[in-house]
Amino acid sequence: MDTKSLARSFIYTDWILTETQFEPDKLHSRETVFTIGNGYLGTRGSFEEGYVRALPATFIHGVYNDVPVVYTELVNCPDWLPLVVIVNGDRFRLDRGEILRYERQLDLRYGILSRSIRWRSPSGHTIDMQFERFASLADEHILGQRWQLTPLDFDGLIEIEASINGYPENQGFNHWENIDQGKTEHGIWLHSRTRNSLIDLAIGAKMTIWGTEASVQVNNAPGYPTLSSTFLATAQQTVIVEKFVTVYTSREIDTPVTAALEKLAHLQDYTVLLNGHKQAWERVWQQSDILIEGDTTAAFAVRYNLFQLLIAAPWHDDKVSIPAKTLSGFGYRGHIFWDTEIFLLPFFIFTQPKVARNLLSYRYHTLNGARRKAAHSGYQGAMYAWESAVTGDEVTPRWSLPNDFYGEDVRIWCRDREIHISADIAYAIWYYWQATGDDEWMQDCGAEIIFDTAIFWSSRIEYNSPSDRYEIRGIIGADEYHEFVHNNTFTNRIVQWHLEKALIVYDWLRQTLPERVQELEQKLQLTPQVRSRWQDIIAKMWIPYDPSTGLIEQFEEFFQLEDINLNNYEPRQKSMQAILSIEGANKRQVLKQPDVLMLLYLMRASAEFPYNQKTLQANWDYYAPRTDITYGSSLGPAIHAILAADLGNLNEAYQRFMQAAMVDLEDSRDNTKDGIHGASAGGVWLAVVFGFGGIQLTEHSPVANPHLPANWTRLKFKLHWRNQWHEFDLHQTLATEDKGNKEKEDTRMGEQKDNKDKETSTINAQSPSETSHNPDIRGVIFDLDGVLTDTAEYHYLGWQKLADEEGIPFNRVANEALRGVSRRASLMLILGNRKYSEAQIQEMMARKNRYYIELLKNITQNDLLPGAIALLDELRQAGIKTAIGSASKNARQVVDRLGIADKVDAISDGYSVDKPKPAPDLFLYAANQLGIKPAQSVVVEDAAAGIEAALAAKMWAVGLGPVERVGAAHVVLPSLAGIKWADLQAKLNDAANKKIDIW
Amino acid sequence: MDTKSLARSFIYTDWILTETQFEPDKLHSRETVFTIGNGYLGTRGSFEEGYVRALPATFIHGVYNDVPVVYTELVNCPDWLPLVVIVNGDRFRLDRGEILRYERQLDLRYGILSRSIRWRSPSGHTIDMQFERFASLADEHILGQRWQLTPLDFDGLIEIEASINGYPENQGFNHWENIDQGKTEHGIWLHSRTRNSLIDLAIGAKMTIWGTEASVQVNNAPGYPTLSSTFLATAQQTVIVEKFVTVYTSREIDTPVTAALEKLAHLQDYTVLLNGHKQAWERVWQQSDILIEGDTTAAFAVRYNLFQLLIAAPWHDDKVSIPAKTLSGFGYRGHIFWDTEIFLLPFFIFTQPKVARNLLSYRYHTLNGARRKAAHSGYQGAMYAWESAVTGDEVTPRWSLPNDFYGEDVRIWCRDREIHISADIAYAIWYYWQATGDDEWMQDCGAEIIFDTAIFWSSRIEYNSPSDRYEIRGIIGADEYHEFVHNNTFTNRIVQWHLEKALIVYDWLRQTLPERVQELEQKLQLTPQVRSRWQDIIAKMWIPYDPSTGLIEQFEEFFQLEDINLNNYEPRQKSMQAILSIEGANKRQVLKQPDVLMLLYLMRASAEFPYNQKTLQANWDYYAPRTDITYGSSLGPAIHAILAADLGNLNEAYQRFMQAAMVDLEDSRDNTKDGIHGASAGGVWLAVVFGFGGIQLTEHSPVANPHLPANWTRLKFKLHWRNQWHEFDLHQTLATEDKGNKEKEDTRMGEQKDNKDKETSTINAQSPSETSHNPDIRGVIFDLDGVLTDTAEYHYLGWQKLADEEGIPFNRVANEALRGVSRRASLMLILGNRKYSEAQIQEMMARKNRYYIELLKNITQNDLLPGAIALLDELRQAGIKTAIGSASKNARQVVDRLGIADKVDAISDGYSVDKPKPAPDLFLYAANQLGIKPAQSVVVEDAAAGIEAALAAKMWAVGLGPVERVGAAHVVLPSLAGIKWADLQAKLNDAANKKIDIW
Repeated sequence: MDTKSLARSFIYTDWILTETQFEPDKLHSRETVFTIGNGYLGTRGSFEEGYVRALPATFIHGVYNDVPVVYTELVNCPDWLPLVVIVNGDRFRLDRGEILRYERQLDLRYGILSRSIRWRSPSGHTIDMQFERFASLADEHILGQRWQLTPLDFDGLIEIEASINGYPENQGFNHWENIDQGKTEHGIWLHSRTRNSLIDLAIGAKMTIWGTEASVQVNNAPGYPTLSSTFLATAQQTVIVEKFVTVYTSREIDTPVTAALEKLAHLQDYTVLLNGHKQAWERVWQQSDILIEGDTTAAFAVRYNLFQLLIAAPWHDDKVSIPAKTLSGFGYRGHIFWDTEIFLLPFFIFTQPKVARNLLSYRYHTLNGARRKAAHSGYQGAMYAWESAVTGDEVTPRWSLPNDFYGEDVRIWCRDREIHISADIAYAIWYYWQATGDDEWMQDCGAEIIFDTAIFWSSRIEYNSPSDRYEIRGIIGADEYHEFVHNNTFTNRIVQWHLEKALIVYDWLRQTLPERVQELEQKLQLTPQVRSRWQDIIAKMWIPYDPSTGLIEQFEEFFQLEDINLNNYEPRQKSMQAILSIEGANKRQVLKQPDVLMLLYLMRASAEFPYNQKTLQANWDYYAPRTDITYGSSLGPAIHAILAADLGNLNEAYQRFMQAAMVDLEDSRDNTKDGIHGASAGGVWLAVVFGFGGIQLTEHSPVANPHLPANWTRLKFKLHWRNQWHEFDLHQTLATEDKGNKEKEDTRMGEQKDNKDKETSTINAQSPSETSHNPDIRGVIFDLDGVLTDTAEYHYLGWQKLADEEGIPFNRVANEALRGVSRRASLMLILGNRKYSEAQIQEMMARKNRYYIELLKNITQNDLLPGAIALLDELRQAGIKTAIGSASKNARQVVDRLGIADKVDAISDGYSVDKPKPAPDLFLYAANQLGIKPAQSVVVEDAAAGIEAALAAKMWAVGLGPVERVGAAHVVLPSLAGIKWADLQAKLNDAANKKIDIW
Repeated sequence: MDTKSLARSFIYTDWILTETQFEPDKLHSRETVFTIGNGYLGTRGSFEEGYVRALPATFIHGVYNDVPVVYTELVNCPDWLPLVVIVNGDRFRLDRGEILRYERQLDLRYGILSRSIRWRSPSGHTIDMQFERFASLADEHILGQRWQLTPLDFDGLIEIEASINGYPENQGFNHWENIDQGKTEHGIWLHSRTRNSLIDLAIGAKMTIWGTEASVQVNNAPGYPTLSSTFLATAQQTVIVEKFVTVYTSREIDTPVTAALEKLAHLQDYTVLLNGHKQAWERVWQQSDILIEGDTTAAFAVRYNLFQLLIAAPWHDDKVSIPAKTLSGFGYRGHIFWDTEIFLLPFFIFTQPKVARNLLSYRYHTLNGARRKAAHSGYQGAMYAWESAVTGDEVTPRWSLPNDFYGEDVRIWCRDREIHISADIAYAIWYYWQATGDDEWMQDCGAEIIFDTAIFWSSRIEYNSPSDRYEIRGIIGADEYHEFVHNNTFTNRIVQWHLEKALIVYDWLRQTLPERVQELEQKLQLTPQVRSRWQDIIAKMWIPYDPSTGLIEQFEEFFQLEDINLNNYEPRQKSMQAILSIEGANKRQVLKQPDVLMLLYLMRASAEFPYNQKTLQANWDYYAPRTDITYGSSLGPAIHAILAADLGNLNEAYQRFMQAAMVDLEDSRDNTKDGIHGASAGGVWLAVVFGFGGIQLTEHSPVANPHLPANWTRLKFKLHWRNQWHEFDLHQTLATEDKGNKEKEDTRMGEQKDNKDKETSTINAQSPSETSHNPDIRGVIFDLDGVLTDTAEYHYLGWQKLADEEGIPFNRVANEALRGVSRRASLMLILGNRKYSEAQIQEMMARKNRYYIELLKNITQNDLLPGAIALLDELRQAGIKTAIGSASKNARQVVDRLGIADKVDAISDGYSVDKPKPAPDLFLYAANQLGIKPAQSVVVEDAAAGIEAALAAKMWAVGLGPVERVGAAHVVLPSLAGIKWADLQAKLNDAANKKIDIW
C-alpha cells in the first residue's frame, strides 16, 4: 500500500495522534481526521483561525434539510470555532509569518483536540499559543474551548474575536435562516432555523479571560455574533481565554434559546467540566477499549477507529442512526446505509448495547417510510430505503449529473435495485437479540420490522413455475459492479434466512406475548397464508450452490461473464470501475466488494448454510482474486481480513486489516476529506475480534479461537453477552500451552473467563525475541553535523573565513578532515605546525565561533538532511529513544533552529564531556541520559572519529558516507534518505549475526 | 384581471412609484419591484435592516458560477445594504414597535429608492428615518446610501452597524469564498472569489456621520466587515449618515481590491455624486422616455417597464447580455434566452443603439459556444444555446427534478429541440443593421453569425425526397405546449427568411469588403455549394400556408389534434399546462404563446410573407382564442396587443397591453418574486410604439399609423433611425383632421417630423369630454365622522358621559340626531329646553371635548371605515384631489391618528368657517383650498345636514346611509366599502343626466 509519505507528519502513541507539521495541502483530510464529537454532534478538526477553502463543519444527529437531487442532507450547523487573534496588528494565520513550532494532538482517551504553536508574526513578534477544544461527553449540550497566549519577546496589544458563524455551508449551501440573535449578561446567542425541515437551533456562547486586564465586548453583526476583547499582553506572561458554547435544537426541546441561555448561565468552571468529560470517556473506554501490544501502529489505529464510532454514537437518541461518513464529513450527505447494521452495529451490540438499541430503534421509527417505499414501488409490507434519513423514505439520488455542458446523465440504480437492505436489518435485529437477550425490544419493535419486511419479500419474490423455485430478479447484490442481475445468491440466501428467522420469531412471540402477535397479525395482515408462503419460499428459494465443489455462483450466469486477471492492471491507483467504466465492469467477473464471501461472512456467525470451511476455501480461492479489494468498496478489506484469518492466511489477513485500519489515517483512498469511513471503522473491530481474536458465538458465550498477527504480543478486549461481560486477554504463544484451557492450537492460543460486570484476565506471555541473536535496540544517538543537518557547511565557511584572514591555505578538501572533530582539534589541524600562543588560539576559536554562530542564523528546517525527520518520527512511534551526540558547543541552538527539539529525548553536546571523539565519553553520556545500555544503543555518525567513538563505547554504529571514511561501522549507508527503521533494524540484525564480536 | 388588491398600497404618479404600507407578506415581490441598478449591477429592493426569509440580491453582469443541474447561474454578490440601527437599545425592525408613518418611493426619473418612516420603538421612543440609495449611472462602480435619523420625543443613544455581508446566497447557495478583508484609513474592504469561475470581487465601503459627535469603528468579523458608530442623538435634531460603496471585479480590472480602495479614497461628496447620477439619468430619458397623457396608470407603467430595461442595460460591456429576469431576481438563473433579441432589443435599437450593439456583440463573443453545441449535437456551423450564459454553451437544465421522495423526473426538452433561437438572433442582427446602418459591426461580427448559423441550418434541415421539399423535424416551436413537432411553420419560415437574408448579406459584404468575405469563406468553409444549398432550401422549404383562406397550420397535423374551448376552463388562476399536464396540452390545440401569430408579428416589420391583413385576420381568429394568453407565457400579451391594434380591436389591444405592463406592478402571475419579466417589459415598448403608435418601418424612416386607446390623449416618443432622431407626438382625435399630413384615419391620427439630433413636435389636441354631459369632477370632499372613520362613536361616548353627569336622558337613538351637527348645536339638542348659562354651556362643551379628545387617543388606522383608504389611493392615482370637510375642531388630530394625513390635499375643519352645516360655507372653503369649482366637487357625507350643505354649495353629493337620512344626495351608497372611483363616476354621470338640475 502506498503510504503517500503521510507517516512523516503523524506520530502514533498509545492514545495520542500527533501531527507535527502544518500541511495546507492536506487541509480537508486532516479536518476529518481530527474530528471530535460526543454522539450528539460532531465537529470537524478545522482550525479556529480559518483558511480559504477550509471545510469547517458541525453536524448534529437528526438535523437534516432538503436539497436538490439527493433529497435531504445532514446539515452543517453554525460554526462555534471561529477565533481571530490579532498580535500587535498582525492577524494570526499559519500561512503568514513563521511557524517556529507546531504540534496538533488528538487525545482519544479523553476526546480532546489540542494544538501547540510558536509563531512569529510578519512584524517579528513571537508568541506561544495553545488551543484546546472538547465536546462534552458528560453533557452533550456543552462545548468548550481554551486558548493560552504567551508573548515571548514583546509586550503588545492582542485582539481576539471569538464568533459563532451563522453562515455555515454544505458545499456552498447554507441550510439556515437566522431568526434572531442577541446578547445577555452571560454572553451571546444565535437562533437559526433550517429552511425546509424547520428545525430550530440555538447556540449560546460566553468567554472569560484570565491573566490580564480585559473586558469582553459584543458585536452583533447579523448572523455573526462575536465576543471580542483587546488587551495588553506582557512578554512571558500567559493569558488564558476560555469559551463555552451551549447548543440545543427543537428536536429535543421546545424552547432551545431558553435552554441554551439557561445552561450558559449556570455552567461550572472549565476544569470541572473538562474533568467530568474525561471521566465520561474513561467509563466508555472501560467497556469498548481494545488493547494491542507489540504493534504500536495497529494498537493506535484500532483505538482511533473505535473512537470514531464512539463519537458518532447516539447515546441518548433513538430516532437517529450513524451515517456512512459518521458526523465527520459531507460524503453521502449524512445518509444511512446497511453499513450501520452490518458493519458498525456489532461493536455496539457487544460493548455499548444501549447505543445498539438506539440504532435499531431508528429503523423502527422509520418503518412507515419503508412502508411508503414499498407502496410506491408496488409491493406490500416494508421495503427499507437503500439510503435513509429522517423519515425512512428513499433518499438515494436517481442521478449523477454531469458538470460539463454536454456530459452524460448517469442513472444511479441502487434506490431501485439494491434491495438486500431489508434483510440486512432483520439480520442485525436477530443478532442484537441473540447477544443482548432484549426480549422487550424484540416484542415492541424488532418483531414488527422482521415481519413487515418479510411480507415485503413475499410480494417481491417471483415464483418460477417451470423450475418450481422462487427467484429474485433484476437487482443489485452486495457487489455493485453488476447493476442488473437475477438470483444474486447473497440476496436469495439472506432473504431465505430472514424468512426462516421470521417464523422463529413469530413462534417465540406467540408463546411469550400472544396479544402482541394478534395485534401485529391484524396490523400487518399477517395471515396463516402469509406464513405458509414464507415456508414455501424457504423451501424452494433458489440457491445455486454446488455441494461437490462448494463453489457458489454470484448470480445467474456470472460464470459466463468474461474472466479477468486483476494483476494485469497493477500497479493502479484507481478502482476497476474507473478503469473499465461501469459497463465494462458489468461484463466481467470483477467484484467491487465481497458478495458470495459477504454471505459466507454473515452465515459464519452461527455457522449456518452455506458456511463451512470447505465452502469458504473454495469461494475464497475463486472470488478473492477477482475482488477489487484495494480501490473498490472500503467495506471489503475488513471482511477479507476475517475470512483470511479463518483460513489461516495471516499475512493476507493482516494486510487487509491494516488497509481498513489506516484508510483514514493514511488517506489511502484519497477521500478522507469526505469523512471517516464508518463501515471500515466498524470492520476494524470485527476484524480484530472475530478475525484475529477468532471469537465464535456459542449458545452459552462467545469463545475465542485466536490467530494473532506475528508481531502482536497481546490482544485484550471485552464483550457483553446476555448481561455478562466477558474479557479476553489473548497472547502470542510459540508453543502449545495448557493452563486449564480446553482449547488448543498449534502455535497460538487464547483464554477467556466469564465474569459478571467485573474484569479478570489471564496472561500467557513470552518474549518473542528470547530465542534470537538480534540486538535489543532501545535508543539511537545521532551525530548532528553531516548526519541530521548540513551545519558542516557552516563550520567550513567559518573556518575558511578564519583561515583566509590568517593567510593559511584551506579548502573544502582540507575541511573533510575536520568531520566530527572538536573545535580546538579542528583549529590545530588547520594551523598545522604553525606557532601560535594559547591566547591567539583562544581568540581564533572564539572568532571562528562568532562567524559560525552568525552563519547559523540562516539555518532553518530546510537544512535538515533528507530522511532525518521521517526517521526521528518513526523511531518515536516505534518507542525507540533518540539523542543528539554532537561535539559542537552550539548543538542546542542548531537543534532549536532545525525545529527538532521536540523530536529528541536528549542532547549531548560540546559542554557534556571533556574528552572529544574518538573518545567514547560523549556517546556514553548520551546513553546514560536516555537510560539505556551501550549495547542497546545505535550511533549514527558521518565521521571516522565518531565511528571510532561509538565502537569504543561498545555501541552499534551506523556510518553515513563512503566506506573509506565510515567503513568501520556495523552498517554503512550513503545517507538517511529513504531509510526506514525496519530496514535499519534488519541490517543491524544481519550485522549482529555476522560480526557479533566486532567490539 | 385580478388586481389582488395590490393597488391599495401603490400610488402611481408621473415618475414615482409610492408604496404606502409595509406588507411583509409581499416581501419578495416588492424586493423585485423596487430593484435599482445602473447596467453594471442590479440590487433588489430589500430592506437595509433585514428580515427573515428576505431575498436581498446584487447581481453583476457576467458574474456567473457553476451550480448543479442548471450548470451555471448569475451569482448573488456580497450585500452592500445591511444596516442595523439600535434606538436606545431597541433594534429597528418594522415587525416590532409601531409604524406611525411609512412611505417607500422609487423615483424612475433619477433612479433613486427612498423610504420615509416614523417608528415608535417597543420602549416608546419615536424616531423619523429617511433611507435613500442609488447605484450611480454616472460611475457604475459607485453605490451610495444616505440615512437621516431624527429622534422626535427623546434624547438617547443610537447605534448603527453598516456592513458588507460576504455570505450572500442564491437560494441558499453561497458562490463566494472570502479571500481577505481589512480596513484602511478610508474604510473597510472585502475580497471574495467565486468558487469555480474564479472571478474576484472587491467591495470597499466608507461611512460619514453628520450632525452629531460620532466616530466610526471597524469590526472585521470574517466575511462580515462592519462600520459601526454609537452616538448621542437629541430630540428634533437630524443626524445624517452617508455610506459609499465601491465595487470592482476581475472581469474589468486585474486588481479589483486596489481599484475599489483607490476609488473609495477619491470620492467626491454625496451631493455631487448624486447630481452626476441624476444628470446621467436625464440624458438617458431624453432618448428613451415615452410620454402618455390621459391614462395615469399606463403612463407610469410604461416608464416603469422602460426603467427596468435601462437599469439592466450593459452600457459599457459587450460580453454580457440581459437575462430573462434582468438583474432583479433568481428566476431562470440569469440565463439569456431569445427574449433579449426578439423582445428587448428593439427598444435599445431605436433609443439606445450602443446598448443594442453590446447585446448583439455578446452573441458574437459566444459564437464558439454555439459552435461547440452544434458539434456536440452532430451538426455544422453555430447552433445557439436555448439558454446561454458566459461561454455560449448550452445551459438549459435537462431535468426538473422532484422534491418529494417518489416524484417523477421531468425531462426538459428545450435544450435539445427549441432551435429557432439561431434564426431569432439573425433576425435581430438584420434589424439592428437596418435601423442603425452600422455596416462596420455587420462586417466585423454580424455577418459571421448570420453565415455560421445559416451553415448550421443547412446541416440541420432534412430533405424529404418523395415530396421534394425541405423539412425541420422533431422540434419545439415558439409555442412550448407542443414538445415534439415536425415542420413548425414559425421555425420553417424564420429559417427560410434567415437564409434569404444570409445571401443578401453575403452579396453586400462581397461588394463592400471582399477580403472579409474571403476570410469568412475560409474560416467557415462557406463554399459556393453551401450557398447554392441555401438557395435550394429557400426555394423548397415547406411552409403550409393556404392562400385561399390565409390560414397557416402551426405544425404538421396540428389541425388533427383535439380542439379546445378555453372559455370552458374559466375562471382559472393557473396555466393550461397546470390544468391539463404537459401531456394533455401536447394532445390539444392549445397554445402557450403566439406561434403562427408570432411569425406574423416578426414578418410584419417589413410586411414580408406570409404577413398581410387577410392572413393576420384569419390566423388571429383561429389562434388567439386557443392561446393561453393569461397564464401561458408572459411573452404573449404584448404581441397580441400589437396584432389586435393592427386589426383595429383596441379593447383587446389595451387589455393585453395592460396585462403586459402591469405584470410585475400587480404581480398578476404570482412570480414577480423571481424577478422582473424582462421580455414583457420589452414587449410593452413594442406594444406602445408598434401597436398603439402604429410605427411602420419604411425605406426612409419610421412612419406612425396610430391607434391610441380611448383614454390616451397624447403619446410621445422618439426613435433613432439611421443616425437621425424621429420624434412622434401623437394625439387622440375625434374627427378627421388635416394639418398638412397625408395620412388620414377615421377617428385618430398622428404626425411625426424628422429632425437631426433635435426634437420637434406637433400636437393635435382635443378634449375628449367636450361633447359629454358628464360632470367634470376634479375633487372629492369627505366628511370625516361616519364617512372615513367611526369617530361618531367617540362623540357619542363623550356626550353620553356628559349627559350622565348632568342627569340628562341620552342614548344611541338620541345620538343619531347629532350626525354632522356642530358641537354647540349638538349640546343644544341634548340640553333641549333645559336652562343653562353661557358659562355652563361653554364648560360643558369643553368637558365633552376633553372626554372626546381622551377617547381619540384610542384611534388608529383600524378605525378607518372599509373602503376609505382604497378610494383615497385610487383618487390620488386618478389625479382627483381630495379634502376633508368636517365640522369637528379635532379633525386634524383625527386625520393624523388615522394615518391619512398624506393622502388628502386639504383639511377644512371646525376652525375654518363660522357657519356650520347645513350652511354651504365649509365645503365652499374646502373647494377653494383645492382650487376647484363647486361644480367640479363631490361631497361625501353621512348626515342629512351635510347633504343639505353640499347641495347648497352646488356640489355633487354622495350620501352614505339610509335613503331616509341621505336620500337628497345625487348618489346614495350604503358605505364606501368596495366602491371604485370608476363606479362612482358612472353613477354621478347617470345622476347628472337624470337630475341635472337638482340644484
